Amino acid sequence: MYNRIYNFSAGPSMLPLPVLEQARDDMMNYQGSGMSVMEMSHRSKVYDAIIKQAEADLREVMNIPDNYKVMFLQGGASMQFANVAMNIMKTGKADYIVTGQFSGKAYKEAQKFGDAHLAATTKEENFTRIPRQEELDLRPDADYVHICFNNTIFGTKWDYIPDTGDVPLVADMSSCILSEPVDVTKFGLIYAGAQKNVAPAGLTIVIAREDLLREDLDKAVPTMCNYATMAENESMYNTPPCYPIYICGLVLNWIKNLGGLEAMKKINEDKAAMLYDCLENSKLFSNPNDKASRSMMNVTFRAEDDEINAKFVKEATAAGFANIKGHRSVGGMRASIYNAMPTEGVAALCEFIKKFEAENL
Amino acid sequence: MYNRIYNFSAGPSMLPLPVLEQARDDMMNYQGSGMSVMEMSHRSKVYDAIIKQAEADLREVMNIPDNYKVMFLQGGASMQFANVAMNIMKTGKADYIVTGQFSGKAYKEAQKFGDAHLAATTKEENFTRIPRQEELDLRPDADYVHICFNNTIFGTKWDYIPDTGDVPLVADMSSCILSEPVDVTKFGLIYAGAQKNVAPAGLTIVIAREDLLREDLDKAVPTMCNYATMAENESMYNTPPCYPIYICGLVLNWIKNLGGLEAMKKINEDKAAMLYDCLENSKLFSNPNDKASRSMMNVTFRAEDDEINAKFVKEATAAGFANIKGHRSVGGMRASIYNAMPTEGVAALCEFIKKFEAENL
Repeated sequence: MYNRIYNFSAGPSMLPLPVLEQARDDMMNYQGSGMSVMEMSHRSKVYDAIIKQAEADLREVMNIPDNYKVMFLQGGASMQFANVAMNIMKTGKADYIVTGQFSGKAYKEAQKFGDAHLAATTKEENFTRIPRQEELDLRPDADYVHICFNNTIFGTKWDYIPDTGDVPLVADMSSCILSEPVDVTKFGLIYAGAQKNVAPAGLTIVIAREDLLREDLDKAVPTMCNYATMAENESMYNTPPCYPIYICGLVLNWIKNLGGLEAMKKINEDKAAMLYDCLENSKLFSNPNDKASRSMMNVTFRAEDDEINAKFVKEATAAGFANIKGHRSVGGMRASIYNAMPTEGVAALCEFIKKFEAENL
Repeated sequence: MYNRIYNFSAGPSMLPLPVLEQARDDMMNYQGSGMSVMEMSHRSKVYDAIIKQAEADLREVMNIPDNYKVMFLQGGASMQFANVAMNIMKTGKADYIVTGQFSGKAYKEAQKFGDAHLAATTKEENFTRIPRQEELDLRPDADYVHICFNNTIFGTKWDYIPDTGDVPLVADMSSCILSEPVDVTKFGLIYAGAQKNVAPAGLTIVIAREDLLREDLDKAVPTMCNYATMAENESMYNTPPCYPIYICGLVLNWIKNLGGLEAMKKINEDKAAMLYDCLENSKLFSNPNDKASRSMMNVTFRAEDDEINAKFVKEATAAGFANIKGHRSVGGMRASIYNAMPTEGVAALCEFIKKFEAENL
């Protein structure tokens, strides 16, 4: 009815149709306020209700305990690479597990601020798998252990939560937050750029155990990078990214209406299984990753012949499967099937893969 | 037709009606792309055209020379308080002129990173005026001089561009950017949170003379805070705040259609003159500021009796004049009349002031 297409972008990515319809309907006058959400003072009562409800719904949907602070920040995950190091390195030691490009960037950024130790990496295997617990070289006196829970580019995901003993676990969940239930109590800090599963770009969610936050950081830490200051001011130290927070609220409401994260997980598992099954049955395409480490959100696949890959991308794009080209460091194709990608979109892609295979084998 | 109200918020604030209508109409499917702007990959061709056009239009509208970089960043002006110091302090010395709350915060933040010198302040006069050139205690060997060009809270504005000799002038223009033409060549760096005259909250525009940028900063500067890195990557080091940038483009198009910044200035001057004239003729209310230092964007006014002020705020709010209450550090009322506030809104407020006065004198 809107002539919309299936958008397999790794992020920013699809938003649920009812969310967009609501945003459209609210645009000129939000709930009788006489203004758009984009025009509201962040200190007004009408906006206060929006941000408070978004936080309450996030806490409910993710089952976030009371001793965790929720922050709505800016700068993306890349800003948090520095913020985590500047805030959570108390003694100056942290362990990093590198399983892809973004965890690699986080590791590199942390080296600016202290002794960042490479506790494990699967780089030599082109990040086709997540390291096992026994491969992790963890230091018991580290301030935290950092992981990226889902690797957007390589299409892998931690299938277990690593045991870090008493050392807090910090996770970048940008590309998997809200895709399934996660035990927040197993993490000291979770952060996520919103532009995959939560909201449009420009919002970053940080969920932090409050005992890890401290106001008194090094002199050279910008105030805007101080988690304790942001938390204490309830994300209102300065003007927050108001509109993405409003969309986040609509998305959370959509998830609640579906039945919460258990229901979301079931839908996502089914979508991913459909696509992985299709690839396993394919004589042309395959997924390069270790089965246990497969991502539920980002599915990479490729033919051995790069001309076939290029042809597939071209024809799929023309057929309305947008942003299906893989990242240059992996090649081939990548289908990002986040929460908002409907099951029919994945089914249509599987049909297209079969049709293409029949024509090109 | 939409039952919209006149919103005098200091920011986020009103957006032009045609901009909101376009955003609403584009919501489900932007120009046949099959997706919302919020859903687009920032690396896609369709989005690339949006951000490139926004930059081109900003350069055209503001007449920005080629040796200036334009960046679309996050974090608001508050993040730039630190970024300016971390990036532009080469020798570690900078002069700050404090004319209100935000310039005061910028000055305080800069002290974290070097020798920030208070070159002038009108704090003792409760910031009712801008200091004159001869009052400025500028150091010829400073790396830059920092000013806030329009003071949102106190309703004052620089009526001249201070002469800083060879020392670059850095200006926070959050609450006056795009309100009138400004000679960019007189500044080394201009920054502005977008949520007053440009776009919804979550976008910060930085315009910097390229010779001031350097990649090689102190080790402890987060990569996301490095202007040279952001400029080199054309605001795409990571995912930018895509949707506010799109709205910024619509706003620039609206300004171009009105006739550019000269035409905008004429409209703004007329609106401000109408309100200031009304206050000058009032026996109940007055504006506390030095005439030469009056802001064209933020007009403060108050009665001597605080009960009258409270009554005015209450009745004005009930009559549909939203967010008219002054900041707690000034008291009374404040009408922020940014670009998108229609002339009729200011006229209606003036009528209301006269009516209120007739009833309460």
